[in-house]
Amino acid sequence: MKDLSTYSALVDSFSKLPGIGTKTAERLAYAVLEMNEEDAKEFSQAILDAKTNVHKCSVCGLYAEGERCDICQDASRDHSVCIVLSYPKDVIAFERLEGFHGVYHVLGGVVSPSKGVMAKDLAIDSLIERIDKEGIKEVIIGTNPTMEGEMTALFLNRLLQEKGVSVTRLAYGLPMGASLDYADSLTLSKALEGRKKL
Amino acid sequence: MKDLSTYSALVDSFSKLPGIGTKTAERLAYAVLEMNEEDAKEFSQAILDAKTNVHKCSVCGLYAEGERCDICQDASRDHSVCIVLSYPKDVIAFERLEGFHGVYHVLGGVVSPSKGVMAKDLAIDSLIERIDKEGIKEVIIGTNPTMEGEMTALFLNRLLQEKGVSVTRLAYGLPMGASLDYADSLTLSKALEGRKKL
Repeated sequence: MKDLSTYSALVDSFSKLPGIGTKTAERLAYAVLEMNEEDAKEFSQAILDAKTNVHKCSVCGLYAEGERCDICQDASRDHSVCIVLSYPKDVIAFERLEGFHGVYHVLGGVVSPSKGVMAKDLAIDSLIERIDKEGIKEVIIGTNPTMEGEMTALFLNRLLQEKGVSVTRLAYGLPMGASLDYADSLTLSKALEGRKKL
Repeated sequence: MKDLSTYSALVDSFSKLPGIGTKTAERLAYAVLEMNEEDAKEFSQAILDAKTNVHKCSVCGLYAEGERCDICQDASRDHSVCIVLSYPKDVIAFERLEGFHGVYHVLGGVVSPSKGVMAKDLAIDSLIERIDKEGIKEVIIGTNPTMEGEMTALFLNRLLQEKGVSVTRLAYGLPMGASLDYADSLTLSKALEGRKKL
């Protein structure tokens, strides 16, 4: 199907998604060709709707259909505990957990001088504002355990100490079910550093 | 984002694709939310176009934008050798190979009495017609190495013997690079059965 510009366009679109290589993109494009008309129309419309109807919550930066997301609007959630995330998509893992009932705040990235991202480019002012306004008592920093994520966490910690809130960081160590043989040395050193008394 | 019907619709659409579970569908939906407007529009349009512009080739049953696919129209290909496939998507692997320059014929399934699919439901008449018309000399049966695929191959073989064409079947055995420890017994017995003199 080398001459099929329609097919190639579809493969290209799938290839732009994260974790989708050319082979998978081809398989998915064929799946679309084999879909019934209705499913294909729904799929196409869902993509357009997502871009049209979904915006960032004006309070926390998560995706929302209205002006504020359902989490920010939910009075039954504990608004005194807030997990700070780098990106909206990071919320998926926490919400899947069903054990956390606080709120979130999305920074929109990490401090990265090499990429020209400074603290002022992140949604930090609005976080400070929320601490005062919503009475946030604990900020759990959930940036990724990378060099830049650590840097952002340290920066935030210093800044938030002044506000008198308790600042915590997610624990890093061996993932559950992991084998020591396969642990990389950075993870292992974090696990050692964070060891707990039994 | 439990209340986001737009988001849920998008996750649902992705979940309908083969090999995409809920977690991956969520990740892909977020990727769409993070796409720029233009890419999202292209993606949405590509899906619609695929359903509108792409049809099955009237000769071989592969997907084509015109009435006949590029392979059937290509005079530089060897029209005397034809690989018989169950589904259009099976062509991807062969075309990626770049070593085969013959043509294809899509049956549209396999003989499966339990699912009510009989030989008459498959594009066998049109294959016979092509043998006469295009002068096909060798038919390579490329149905999957499953019970139903084997049954279909045996049926076709009996039918095509009468036409005086050479009928072959893809070789089955150990995949290259495989380890004997991991081979299932059916594959191993096929490998033994099909052993070759060195």
